[in-house]
Order: sequence, then structure tokens, then C-alpha cells
Amino acid sequence: MTEYTFGHKHILGLDHLSRPDIEHILNTAESFKEISSRQIKKVPTLRGKTVISLFFEPSTRTRLSFEIAAKRMSADTFNISASTSSATKGETLIDTARNLEAMNPDVIIMRHARSGSPHLLTRHIKTSVINAGDGTHEHPSQGLLDLMTVKEHKGGIDGLKIAIVGDISHSRVAHSNIIGFTTMGAEVVVCGPATLLPAEVEKLGATRCRTVAEALDQADVVMPLRIQKERQNDPLIPSFREYAIYFGINSENIKAAKPDALIMHPGPINRGVELTPELADSSRSVILDQVTNGVAVRMALLYLVLG
Amino acid sequence: MTEYTFGHKHILGLDHLSRPDIEHILNTAESFKEISSRQIKKVPTLRGKTVISLFFEPSTRTRLSFEIAAKRMSADTFNISASTSSATKGETLIDTARNLEAMNPDVIIMRHARSGSPHLLTRHIKTSVINAGDGTHEHPSQGLLDLMTVKEHKGGIDGLKIAIVGDISHSRVAHSNIIGFTTMGAEVVVCGPATLLPAEVEKLGATRCRTVAEALDQADVVMPLRIQKERQNDPLIPSFREYAIYFGINSENIKAAKPDALIMHPGPINRGVELTPELADSSRSVILDQVTNGVAVRMALLYLVLG
Amino acid sequence: MTEYTFGHKHILGLDHLSRPDIEHILNTAESFKEISSRQIKKVPTLRGKTVISLFFEPSTRTRLSFEIAAKRMSADTFNISASTSSATKGETLIDTARNLEAMNPDVIIMRHARSGSPHLLTRHIKTSVINAGDGTHEHPSQGLLDLMTVKEHKGGIDGLKIAIVGDISHSRVAHSNIIGFTTMGAEVVVCGPATLLPAEVEKLGATRCRTVAEALDQADVVMPLRIQKERQNDPLIPSFREYAIYFGINSENIKAAKPDALIMHPGPINRGVELTPELADSSRSVILDQVTNGVAVRMALLYLVLG
Repeated sequence: MTEYTFGHKHILGLDHLSRPDIEHILNTAESFKEISSRQIKKVPTLRGKTVISLFFEPSTRTRLSFEIAAKRMSADTFNISASTSSATKGETLIDTARNLEAMNPDVIIMRHARSGSPHLLTRHIKTSVINAGDGTHEHPSQGLLDLMTVKEHKGGIDGLKIAIVGDISHSRVAHSNIIGFTTMGAEVVVCGPATLLPAEVEKLGATRCRTVAEALDQADVVMPLRIQKERQNDPLIPSFREYAIYFGINSENIKAAKPDALIMHPGPINRGVELTPELADSSRSVILDQVTNGVAVRMALLYLVLG
Repeated sequence: MTEYTFGHKHILGLDHLSRPDIEHILNTAESFKEISSRQIKKVPTLRGKTVISLFFEPSTRTRLSFEIAAKRMSADTFNISASTSSATKGETLIDTARNLEAMNPDVIIMRHARSGSPHLLTRHIKTSVINAGDGTHEHPSQGLLDLMTVKEHKGGIDGLKIAIVGDISHSRVAHSNIIGFTTMGAEVVVCGPATLLPAEVEKLGATRCRTVAEALDQADVVMPLRIQKERQNDPLIPSFREYAIYFGINSENIKAAKPDALIMHPGPINRGVELTPELADSSRSVILDQVTNGVAVRMALLYLVLG
Repeated sequence: MTEYTFGHKHILGLDHLSRPDIEHILNTAESFKEISSRQIKKVPTLRGKTVISLFFEPSTRTRLSFEIAAKRMSADTFNISASTSSATKGETLIDTARNLEAMNPDVIIMRHARSGSPHLLTRHIKTSVINAGDGTHEHPSQGLLDLMTVKEHKGGIDGLKIAIVGDISHSRVAHSNIIGFTTMGAEVVVCGPATLLPAEVEKLGATRCRTVAEALDQADVVMPLRIQKERQNDPLIPSFREYAIYFGINSENIKAAKPDALIMHPGPINRGVELTPELADSSRSVILDQVTNGVAVRMALLYLVLG
């Protein structure tokens, strides 16, 4: 009988992680969570480690969550955002990464609009890379914090029914969640405008539903996705008002779900579009727990790739 | 006889602080000031505390001053500026604040263009909030550092005459100073373009003067306010040149004040507009002392709200 | 016989540094280099020191390199970039500097588009100033890291032939390198478009060559300069394609240099313009060593000005 070892140097997506890997990350995150509620929120675990955030897309929440996670473990953090980066000076992404590597960082946390960018990095540098969202591909730390939140509230994930509603096609959050929840034994159903619900999601393990009612039926978790205002003029998306009518989650259609179904959202919320304010603020909403668990999951990821 | 206790979790404005509160803040700041002149400018007082600056208006000086104050007390600091924040993604201010709260910060330092925004926050989150300037309402840490500077140079504040000159109507610095100096027993007189000198300032305890000469007469402290270039096309403000002639403080009109009157300015200075370079750089100018005391006052505020 | 003492409070340019000064900086940097390859990359040397980066031009690499250097020595770092600074509020540079000084920093690292700006600062404030690039004048930490890299690979600098190719006229990197390498006993030859190769470089100690072949002949080090895209419409610079043909370094013209000649570049590289990808990635390229040494040199500079 062999002991489990976490063997990943990079966290690129949930598609690379096994069920024992995910369980180990969640257990580690649970053990770290308590640090953030101490009077002195700081442990020396990653003292003297150099953590670089390389964000080619704007982000408040994810960048901040990683930075808080790193500093609570005593790492030194550095922020590079696209607007100030050499990217604007015509340097290739690989050159940027190699230059960062030459300064001996321990981990690069990367967000990029192009799917697969963090994978490209790992083929050219030796530094650990954590994907903080790549195009429409994956957002693994978000997927993991969602798993942690469901596990925390439901006691486990196996056998649950998870309903994800919205623009599945462009959502890296949806992709990571479909992979993560199915790996952990849950059933994932998805629903959204037909144009944004590609057949390929079935390869990831999700079932497509034609109506929100069908998707939510007996669901344990209901997760509307954020409608992105930057896509508002996209012909694939109806008007906000129309979207709210057909795909918004509200106190009427939620009745199809189990009475104790959790309401989740990756944030930031467009209140009244994909989710009504009543539900967002209801007792079954665990949206803020997701944010709290995000810090714990990111502490675990930093710890594990640097362990 | 009961002992004094500082009972404030938030610092929203000087209008909430009693005279003993202000005295306690100033005494605390005075005791911390020496730390910034040490070889090793660091004490472990706030180690493991999470301090978030949430600035919806650009700022160098105030943000930097708070960040230096926090780090000299060993807190971990995090900067969020409006341009990178989820605000641009349509999230409500309350949702932004609740999301930050979910990451377990100890204090949120907030600047916002809308008066009352920090107060709004305190009704929705439990984290301590320090107002770093809200619209035209208050800028309490600036008011306190001004009080500290006057006390330091004059030995006390009681009975002094303080003359504030400029756009009183839109100045949060003026409002905090009027409240602070009158609370501490000084007389505050104000002067400025008639359109920018509302009758309401008398409710705050200030006396309106018709001319600069009248305002400066026997004054112990002369504080011209910054004319904001962003308001240059505002019909309420005359041209810079005209403003300098009627309301600029110079070596002629300063003669009306006491010979040892202090020159103060909240910065950044428009040299030659609201204040002549000779006076800004004169021996009676305490403008840079204000900046130095700003760090000490902010150390005190962080310490007291987290105590 | 007197012992050597490093007597510089500011690092403004290599033109102020003697050969013993440079040797001392390089020795100090070499002794610090090892820290960045430790598991725990942190020494307490500059604990409690306040290091402010005041950048009026965008920069990723230099700013990050200084920030990493400072944090690995346990200093507290603060970033001010032009876009967020009071500069936009019409404050003079000297007022900005005096205000920073009033917050008791230990060193200000400054980049500015105007040549001589850091020198101006030192005449008005007492804080140590390190020039991180001023206009077309100097970029001393870059010059020093280039010296360190050559010394490391060649065992010494004396008697070597250094060829710098490109827009010498506008390059602060070229200026610092010409001064540094000649001070250390090397021969520096320069080559570039005639309009960008001023006669004045001969006063700095460099020899002008008419052709790249002549410049590279028997060279020990070949350093193409970055062609700046922001100057692309400048009539002084030919098209990128034409530039590559006449002044780009490639596997043909490099044959004129010594077989073991080093390829250096200040970065970011325009691959295929001033340098071919084959050479940039060849075994004789030390471009990433330059970046690594940059952190060590900046640790040394911070240590020496604060010593």
C-alpha cells in the first residue's frame, strides 16, 4: 500500500487533477481556513518565497484573494498587470516569462485572455505556474473553492445534483466546475441560451437541459453564471431583461430545486439579471462563503506547489 | 470616576469624535511619531493584520501615507483602485464591500467621490472602516494631522484663531478642520468666493468673513485650500489669475495675521495660485510637518480601531 | 595605506563612480547573488527600511527587479507610478519629492523621462536617490548588471572589446555601459544609423565604427540595443525590416566577433529586429543572466546607499 503524494508542480486545470488530488487540496484548504479567523492572521510557512501575479486581464477579487493567501503564509508578493507590462512593448509571452523566471520567483500566478497560455509557460520555464483563469478554458482555483463550499455545506459531493445556468460556452468557471464536480462523483446539468450551450460540454461529463426548470429539478446546488456586460452587444446574448426572464434564477423557478439547495455565484453578481437580490441575500446563498473559501483554497495551492 | 476608553470601531468623520477622543488620538499619534525617525522603522504592533485600501478616486499621498503607517506597524497591506475594481463590472458598492469582508480583512480604508459612502459600508459589513475622504463631506485623518501639527507648534489649540481660505463648499478638508478645531476650542473663520461659501458652514461652528484681510486678522493659523484644476472650467471659480489676486495668500495679506502665524496647506500646492512660493517655503510654513504627522496620525488610527 | 569606503549616498550614474567604487559594487552584488537561489530568499539586512519607487515612465522589469531586491533584504516597498501620482495634479517634481521625504523614506528609486531629474531631487531632499533611468542620460543599475555579467563570464573586464550596436544617441543603457566598461579598462566601440551616432560618444570614451562588421571584429561582447517601437515613426529610424538588414545582429555578422563572444541585450527584445531569435536563444547568449544579476546588483545598491 503506497501513501498518497501530491505530485503537481503546476495547477493548470481540474482536468489534470485526480479525485485523490482534489480531496487532498480540499483537506489542506480546510486545515488552513482557520488561519484567516485568527487575531494574528499569519503563519511563517512560505517565508522567503517569491510569488508573482502576472495578470493580462483586469481582476480585483482573484488577484486580491491570491495576494491575501500568499501574505498570510508570509510569502513576498509582486503584481504585474498587463497595462504596465512589457507586453505592450512587443515582447513575446515566452520572453516575459523567461525574464521573470530569471529573477528566481517560486510561483507565477497567471491570468490571460488566451486559453492555454499558462500551459505554454510551463513548457518554457521551470517555475511553478498557477492558472488564475485562461480565456474560456479553466479557472481551477474557482472550481476548487466551489467544491470546498459545497462539501462544507453538504458534508460531501458524491451523488449531488449541480445545476449551472448561463453562458456555458465562454465560462471558464463552468468548465472547471463541470470537471471538478463530476470527478468528485456529482451529476452536473447545464442550461443556457442554445447558442451558448455547446454539445462539447457533454464530453466534459455534463448533461444539457432544455429549460431552467428541468435543470433545477431536485438540484442540490444552483449556480447561475455571471452575464458579462462586455458581451452585451454580442448577438449571442439577448437583452439583460430578456435574459433575466428566461435564464435568471428567482424565487419562483428555484422551487424546482431541493428546499435546501445552495445558491452559488462566481461573482461579481449582476443583481436582477442572472440572480434576483432576494436569492443572492437569502439564507441558502453561500456566495460569500465561496469568497472566504477562495483564500483558503489558494493558500493550499501555493503551499502544495511549493511543498 | 471612569477611565477614558476609545470606543470607535470606525473613523468616518470628526463629527463623531468628542474632544477626549481627539485628544486621545493626538496623544497616541505623538507617541508613534518617533518610530518613523528610527533606523529600523518597524514595530510588530499590527503583525498579521490585513489592511485594505479601497480607493475609488486617485490618490498618491493619502494612500501612501496610510500604507507606510500600516507597514511600519507590520500590517499586511493591499491596494484596490477603482480602475481595476469590480466597480467597473457593475457590482454594487455594498457587494464589493461584502466580498472584501469575506476575505477577513481587519480594516478597510476607503476613498470615494460620493459623500457618505463609508457610512453606507459600516451599515453592511462588520469590518472597521476608515474614511480617507468621501466626496465633499469629510477627510478625518487630514483634519487630525492638521490638529496635531498646530498643537505641536503652538503648544495647544484652545483659543487660537484659524483662518481657512478657498472653496469651502466643496472641501472635505475644510469641513473636517472646521469641526476639529472648534471641538478643540479654537475659533475658525472662513473666506472664499461668495458662491463657494455656504451659510451652512456656520452650523459647523465657523464664522464667514467677507474679505481675506478680515479672515487673516490676528490669525494664528492660515490655511489656503487647494484650488482644484479639475474644477477650472467651473463657472463658480474665477480664473486662476483672478483667484490668486482675490484669494491667494501672499506676503502682503499675511501681514494681517499674527507675526508667528503658521502657514498650512493640505497639498498638493498650486504654487502662485492659492499660495505664493515664498510663503510655502518660508520658515513659518509647516506644510511638510503636516505630511510627517500624517503618517503618525494614521498609525494611531489603525492602532485604535484595531485595538 | 587607507581602507576603501563606499562614499556615495546616491546612485545617479556611472559617471560619478570610480573604478574602486564599481569593483566594490560588483563584489557586493556577487556576495548577495546566492541569496536568490536559496529555499528561503530573505535576509533581514534592510528590515524596517522604507523604499519608494517613483516611476514617471512605465516599467515592469526594472521596477520589479528593484522591488524583489528590496523585499529579499526585508525592506518595505512602496510603488508610485506617474499615472496615479500628484504629478497629474500640477504639483512640481520638487514638491512631490519633498512630500515623500516628509514621510521618512530611506531611499527613492526614480525613473523619469527628463534627463537629470534624479540629480535635481538630490539638490532638494536628503533622502538617498537611485536613478532607475533618466531620459537619454543614464541607467546605472543596468550598466552595473552588464558589467557583473561580463565579469562573471569572462573572469574580468580589462582589455575586452565591447561592441554596442543601435540607437546610441537616445540610449541611457548605452551611455552607462560606455562609461562603465571604459572605466573598468575595456574598449568600447559603437555602431548604428549615422543620425543616431553622435560625435559626443567619443568624449565618453567610445570609438565609432562605420559598419557593424568593423564594430564586431574580434569583439568579446556584442550588445544590440532595443529599437523602440515608440520611435517607429521617427524619421531618424529606418523601417524595422531595413534596420534588421543593416544593424540587426545575426548568425552571419556575428562571425566577425570572437568565437566565444557573449550576446547581451537590455531587453525587452524585438526578436528578428535588432537580434535574431537563434542568437538570442544561443548558448553564448547571457541575456537571462543579465536579468538574474540585475536583482543582485540592486540588492547591492540598496545595501550600499543605506549602509
